[in-house]
Amino acid sequence: MGCCMSRKKKNNGVAKSKLSNPSIKNEGTEFPLSEILAPSRLQQNSSGNEDDSLSLSTVLSCRSTSCPIKPNGGIGDQYKKPLLLMGMSTQDQEEKQKVGQEDAIYSPPQPPESFPYYITAPIENLHKKLYEDLFKLLTDEGLFFNSKKGRSHSPFEFKSPNELKNEIDFELGNAGVNHDALLEIVRGVVRFQPRPGHPFNMEQSLAGLEPYTCISGLISTCISSNDKYIVSNVLALLESEMIQAICKLVGYNGFGNGDGAIVNGSILANTYAMKMAVRRKFPLMKRKGLAGCKRPVVFVSTASVYIHRKCAIFQGLGTDSIIPVDIDEFGRMNVEDLEEKIKDCLSLKRDLIPCMVVGTAGTNIFRALDPLDKIANVCKRFELWFHVDGTWDGGALLFSETLRDKLIGLQRSDSFAWSQHFVLSCTCTCLVTPPRHKDKLAQFTNLGDDTGNAFMEPPLYDQEYDDARHNTLMSPERAEMLKFWLMWKAKGTNDLGRHVDYVYKNVAYCLEEMRKRGGFNRILDRFDGTNVCFVYVPTAYRGLVPNSEAYCEKVSKLTLQLARSLLVQGIVSLSYSEIPKKPTFLILSLHNSAVSRQDIQYVLDQIKHYGEKFGSVQ
Amino acid sequence: MGCCMSRKKKNNGVAKSKLSNPSIKNEGTEFPLSEILAPSRLQQNSSGNEDDSLSLSTVLSCRSTSCPIKPNGGIGDQYKKPLLLMGMSTQDQEEKQKVGQEDAIYSPPQPPESFPYYITAPIENLHKKLYEDLFKLLTDEGLFFNSKKGRSHSPFEFKSPNELKNEIDFELGNAGVNHDALLEIVRGVVRFQPRPGHPFNMEQSLAGLEPYTCISGLISTCISSNDKYIVSNVLALLESEMIQAICKLVGYNGFGNGDGAIVNGSILANTYAMKMAVRRKFPLMKRKGLAGCKRPVVFVSTASVYIHRKCAIFQGLGTDSIIPVDIDEFGRMNVEDLEEKIKDCLSLKRDLIPCMVVGTAGTNIFRALDPLDKIANVCKRFELWFHVDGTWDGGALLFSETLRDKLIGLQRSDSFAWSQHFVLSCTCTCLVTPPRHKDKLAQFTNLGDDTGNAFMEPPLYDQEYDDARHNTLMSPERAEMLKFWLMWKAKGTNDLGRHVDYVYKNVAYCLEEMRKRGGFNRILDRFDGTNVCFVYVPTAYRGLVPNSEAYCEKVSKLTLQLARSLLVQGIVSLSYSEIPKKPTFLILSLHNSAVSRQDIQYVLDQIKHYGEKFGSVQ
Repeated sequence: MGCCMSRKKKNNGVAKSKLSNPSIKNEGTEFPLSEILAPSRLQQNSSGNEDDSLSLSTVLSCRSTSCPIKPNGGIGDQYKKPLLLMGMSTQDQEEKQKVGQEDAIYSPPQPPESFPYYITAPIENLHKKLYEDLFKLLTDEGLFFNSKKGRSHSPFEFKSPNELKNEIDFELGNAGVNHDALLEIVRGVVRFQPRPGHPFNMEQSLAGLEPYTCISGLISTCISSNDKYIVSNVLALLESEMIQAICKLVGYNGFGNGDGAIVNGSILANTYAMKMAVRRKFPLMKRKGLAGCKRPVVFVSTASVYIHRKCAIFQGLGTDSIIPVDIDEFGRMNVEDLEEKIKDCLSLKRDLIPCMVVGTAGTNIFRALDPLDKIANVCKRFELWFHVDGTWDGGALLFSETLRDKLIGLQRSDSFAWSQHFVLSCTCTCLVTPPRHKDKLAQFTNLGDDTGNAFMEPPLYDQEYDDARHNTLMSPERAEMLKFWLMWKAKGTNDLGRHVDYVYKNVAYCLEEMRKRGGFNRILDRFDGTNVCFVYVPTAYRGLVPNSEAYCEKVSKLTLQLARSLLVQGIVSLSYSEIPKKPTFLILSLHNSAVSRQDIQYVLDQIKHYGEKFGSVQ
Repeated sequence: MGCCMSRKKKNNGVAKSKLSNPSIKNEGTEFPLSEILAPSRLQQNSSGNEDDSLSLSTVLSCRSTSCPIKPNGGIGDQYKKPLLLMGMSTQDQEEKQKVGQEDAIYSPPQPPESFPYYITAPIENLHKKLYEDLFKLLTDEGLFFNSKKGRSHSPFEFKSPNELKNEIDFELGNAGVNHDALLEIVRGVVRFQPRPGHPFNMEQSLAGLEPYTCISGLISTCISSNDKYIVSNVLALLESEMIQAICKLVGYNGFGNGDGAIVNGSILANTYAMKMAVRRKFPLMKRKGLAGCKRPVVFVSTASVYIHRKCAIFQGLGTDSIIPVDIDEFGRMNVEDLEEKIKDCLSLKRDLIPCMVVGTAGTNIFRALDPLDKIANVCKRFELWFHVDGTWDGGALLFSETLRDKLIGLQRSDSFAWSQHFVLSCTCTCLVTPPRHKDKLAQFTNLGDDTGNAFMEPPLYDQEYDDARHNTLMSPERAEMLKFWLMWKAKGTNDLGRHVDYVYKNVAYCLEEMRKRGGFNRILDRFDGTNVCFVYVPTAYRGLVPNSEAYCEKVSKLTLQLARSLLVQGIVSLSYSEIPKKPTFLILSLHNSAVSRQDIQYVLDQIKHYGEKFGSVQ
């Protein structure tokens, strides 16, 4: 990578002469700097032919040579001082090199011969070997678990906290450690953390390690910056592209583009949506807060109430503001109950202001899909904000040609929170809104004139791509976004869809294999997602009445024993959970496409084997 | 890394027989599982001799062999099936290997010969080469900018948005791209993003790229998980150690340990603090929210009001709840004005409830340090929560023996938000509270019994280390925390202190060099931090009355021109800002210890050179 860029644009000389923006005067001292530095506006004014369009560097090298800053009064010579030039014409570069030796005062100084250990920049001769060793350690031992060698590792060498403290030196003290010691510490970290790439990690938050997501963590370390375009230019454009691509996939069509933000996790994404919804009914909220107001309320299915209560705490609504709506036998919102509860809030005049309904596309645990189209109808009738929470991963279905229809109604929503932590094993979370709500996010989050920010920055360039940073109260999570963008870029919508199709087929296969084996009792009759929830009922327990007290007690105990034993022996890591009136149950999360049918058979055989074994002795 | 761990604990057979916890019965079917699986409690009951203490795996292998689960009724043979065993005794392992060939049904299946491109796990023969190529690309071109070669790059090849779209193919479509194309895309990302490791990146949010922070991004990609101990064991212990180390450094001494959480960015850290403070005066807030309440108010210096207004929006207080307090000529909070404003709120009975005062340890831009000890006195008198916002980096001073005293009074605070984004170039943000507020964070964030969470998980192990995850409303940011922990581990408190001392000396050196050169006018007479704020006044402007309208207009225009020209030419990337009644000014952020005195001279010479040049033609 040389210090001067390869130039796509030809014919800079011609472009210069086409500088036709009337606000730019080639002579004189007074001209609006911001106009000169708004390249996209300049380009709109140029002929539109790519080869002829003006680049920022063209304009700026123009400014430095033929604009008012053109050397005159004897400063022409000084202009030729050697500099680290960028974006200059080849002629400029040659000139720079020619005079490079003449006057060294403006050359950057040579780096010191050595740097101290406390340095805050990576130094080749200090750190490169450590980086190489760590990279080798990770690629040898931490990343690949699908080779024969990889499968000889267990998915998780589980240690209790006190055991682990004996294995890894966690303590932070006055003295640092050298690189050999650091390497050993990282070896321990890699060894004793669960290994998400391992196919037998079927725990819901561990299964799968998307390969492009994974490597983007390395890339973002050397570029990470989360702020305005001028310090995060590439990532700002990635973010913009990704938000538009999601809006398109959702079906948010209309005049102009949708809007959105990359945020850190599902709680924040859903909190922002709730903010927009409440603000529609309480327009002064940003300045006045909720003190002294009536209570805004939000309707959510009982299966999703937990996360939205957290959102309500976050924004000062309080958990009482979340009204749980009943679910049906498959875990989906009951729309009749929703209607009744909205009417109830409106009629009783309890100082409650209904603001929003959340439709969940993939609930926690059961991954149930609420009937989005019906909810959209209710929201339209009562003029409520319709938010879809896809952070438990229903959104992955959008990639699949065959499964996309399960989300019918999503395109009618006012906002959509999307995360692919589960089905695509990618942790990036995004909130998008349709074109009709363009700027809604920014209206709420951007302090704009309300700021009282003592420190304003006059623009150095066109600020179109700074808009997105006003869509969150924090810095945008652009490094996170690189994960998702890189995955999507590598695989394309088509391959992401093939992955989704594959893992849904695995679920069907697993359920069929359970049926064949016997003793595997599902918790629901039908699963909308990739979590299979079940208990194993060993032969010895089959005389018990299903879901009776004795049955629940015995099966629950067995479930825990199975989960623990399979984990600690390193056979398979899986989740378990409980709901009222059912025994504690196991969850196989089957969203990793590295899991084969043989793997599913193996895991079911292990569960059956230990289930029978533990069942026979209790 | 073999599949079985090297065992530190000797004499497992003896340990087994010492299983003396009275709640565990070696015979019979009824025993409390949770007792068996709380290893630290078990260990407390053992003799305390490390070699004799019971490990979780010992207990569990005991359970599998001589506890109720001991094979009987003919199941003994089945127990010998070959398994991926972990945490078993050597004897068990040998037995396992002996019978390994006998019965293959329980061996994990072989991986498929090939995997599809859409796979959600890193596969050695699919992805290893890409990873190696990317690693080489980054180490060759993206990380090291302190060698001679590195310095021939500019700190930032700035491109306008439209130019950049011609350089990098951002579009997401149906078809994916192959690894060669992906490598080229990443090459563009690395090339056109600003390079934070470059010593001439003196922009405030770009300067410095801490080497251990940087590499931890790679490590965390293959282990990242942010939840309970059972899926994030190593990181949970790191988090606990780091929070304690910070509490100790702050001086939060007392009975027991302090508490805290790793959070995502300064807005969240300060929001959590505000939540705790408001909740002290409004105990029902978590359930009832703020609807119908009086208005809580918070006092912040005018220099820091921006970020705390954002926090207020976040939690439904509204920006009106933030009361700005005047600052002195060095940018620090005026404590007399603070007292007056508190009294004013209390006396006027305007339905305002003072809740908290924020002392800022390092304000935005000027990095001023508020008089923390005096603020602590005021808070004590009026019974207000005293929060210190160190997210703009004042906290780094704690590492320095010589500079630590500048933070006197911090140890009296009720909460402290700490980030080292600037002075230590490490982005991890942490909120800590002293021992007297142990559990305050959790009380506010943990839904506990209020949850209505349908899905509860009975404990599989001692849950002490799950506490921290209840301290945030989101998942804890443990991958972030790895950055800070690894840096601290490598450098130790001592070297972190040396870094801080070095960069503060650089600031003094820079100010002295400015004085020698002339024309460099500081914005404040004294700087508490590593940002040097100044304007360059060229010879041609020196007749103007300082801070007159004409002066401000001319100097402001020159400042923008300098910032832009130095950036776009690739000489140095720096920040600029403005405040009322002063010209727009430049900011040199000198917190990167890779910057030498010669580098400072070079940058000042460049500023002077271009300042004179641009000044002479306007």
